[in-house]
Amino acid sequence: MGGDQLPSWRETAAKQSIAEFVAAVTSPESADFVAPPERIAVFDNDGTLWTEQPVYAQLAFALDRAAELGHPVSLEQLRAGGMPTLVDLVKLTHAGITTDEFEASCRRWLAAARHPPFGRPYPAMVYQPMLELLALLGRHGFSCWIFSGGGTDFMRAFASEVYGLPPHRVIGSVGATEFRIGADGPELVKNAAIDVINDGPQQPSSIHRHVGQRPIVAAGNTDGDLAMLQWTAASPHRTLQLVVRHTDGDREYAYDRDPILGSGTGQIHAAAEQGWTVIDMAADWSTVYSPAP
Amino acid sequence: MGGDQLPSWRETAAKQSIAEFVAAVTSPESADFVAPPERIAVFDNDGTLWTEQPVYAQLAFALDRAAELGHPVSLEQLRAGGMPTLVDLVKLTHAGITTDEFEASCRRWLAAARHPPFGRPYPAMVYQPMLELLALLGRHGFSCWIFSGGGTDFMRAFASEVYGLPPHRVIGSVGATEFRIGADGPELVKNAAIDVINDGPQQPSSIHRHVGQRPIVAAGNTDGDLAMLQWTAASPHRTLQLVVRHTDGDREYAYDRDPILGSGTGQIHAAAEQGWTVIDMAADWSTVYSPAP
Repeated sequence: MGGDQLPSWRETAAKQSIAEFVAAVTSPESADFVAPPERIAVFDNDGTLWTEQPVYAQLAFALDRAAELGHPVSLEQLRAGGMPTLVDLVKLTHAGITTDEFEASCRRWLAAARHPPFGRPYPAMVYQPMLELLALLGRHGFSCWIFSGGGTDFMRAFASEVYGLPPHRVIGSVGATEFRIGADGPELVKNAAIDVINDGPQQPSSIHRHVGQRPIVAAGNTDGDLAMLQWTAASPHRTLQLVVRHTDGDREYAYDRDPILGSGTGQIHAAAEQGWTVIDMAADWSTVYSPAP
Repeated sequence: MGGDQLPSWRETAAKQSIAEFVAAVTSPESADFVAPPERIAVFDNDGTLWTEQPVYAQLAFALDRAAELGHPVSLEQLRAGGMPTLVDLVKLTHAGITTDEFEASCRRWLAAARHPPFGRPYPAMVYQPMLELLALLGRHGFSCWIFSGGGTDFMRAFASEVYGLPPHRVIGSVGATEFRIGADGPELVKNAAIDVINDGPQQPSSIHRHVGQRPIVAAGNTDGDLAMLQWTAASPHRTLQLVVRHTDGDREYAYDRDPILGSGTGQIHAAAEQGWTVIDMAADWSTVYSPAP
């Protein structure tokens, strides 16, 4: 596997730390060698693999869908109402629909909607350097998984094509579904109950439930990802923790607090000072997005 | 891949139906061809892949562990107390312990305990013909998963070695876990809350959540597996439904009602009459268990 496998990464400490880690755990003669079945890597999605500003893509989807359903909600109402208003919006837009219908609705939206102000389809708002990292890890025998606060069903509508991950490796928050025999046969209906909000200390529990193995790589960008990074760091194997810092107000956004929910980045950055790898978007990435589609 | 890949199956209709199905969905020139990523097969565990009589292995484990913890419960108390007593037993024996400690405890028990009256370790109570079927499907590009009412953590303590499945493909009932920073660092503690009882109509929801794809093969043995089989049968692809019938009082057990919980087999057998493949253990299997270990 010759050539630069991370061409959108500048030759900085972040890239060096990834290269050293991958060499150490995949070289059979290395003291840090980890067998392929144990090479588990977990990634947050919003703000780690794609842009989460000015609002999460899934929230933009929900607002559009609420309007389409005749119950428009504004971003201002949402900011004022906080979590209860957000939960109401999710119930309105993500329930009372079969899983097949919901997937079709997500796909239609993802194909048609454009990110303001970049004017790109949302699936083109993924970070090219992170796509290269996913591919590099995959070529080196890693199983990459997404563990994110976003909805599992929403993410799966694009993640397989965009990230190259099978649906079972894309895990987020989960709404309850109900099995019933409908007019067209058996179907699963999404209902308004939220089974899991996959954020913070819930993430290690979800990893245990869905993977059943301790990861050796974790990547995140806010305090909601801290537990997942701590859990990974405590593996008996050599591990790699990646913390994405949004420092690029020109090409992406510069911020230290995620949109809407306001989860900060203080704890994760404090932890990163203890030896985790910080990715400074402005400094470490030569390209942020792939060439305009 | 020459030779008989199912040597423990007699030359009966069941074996024929498996062979025909596998040929139809894996031959590129077949009208029923299914691409490898969509070849998902789901299996119940207790009574489908291994013996569930005289009581589920996990229940034998729980009874032994309760005695070890100084709170012995008898099988008679359990039968008299029904579900509430069972839930209390699970809380006593499956909670207040880290996931690492629980796994170690399961492994110790699985190595030491013997099945009455067969005198074998429980992992040697798996059905040799089903091991051959799992291997056959694996060789033909299928991803085999277990979806069972048994506990995920208990099953994973032996399923990888015995069935050759990675932990993420072994899904059962789930107790809640809590992330905390303990004296030795980050850990997950199992608590007494039961998040999911993975039986009946819950199974298609669990498959959606953990796989995110519709299976094309499903195997079960009681009415608790009916929804999973119906869900699979409704796939747009050609599918295979397998219903294991316990007809072999000499080599295994002959019964139509599962132990303890008493879930029947009436509905699943009625459904099987509509074209599903019934596996009659006495008639269809030349060997039930592998040679004595």
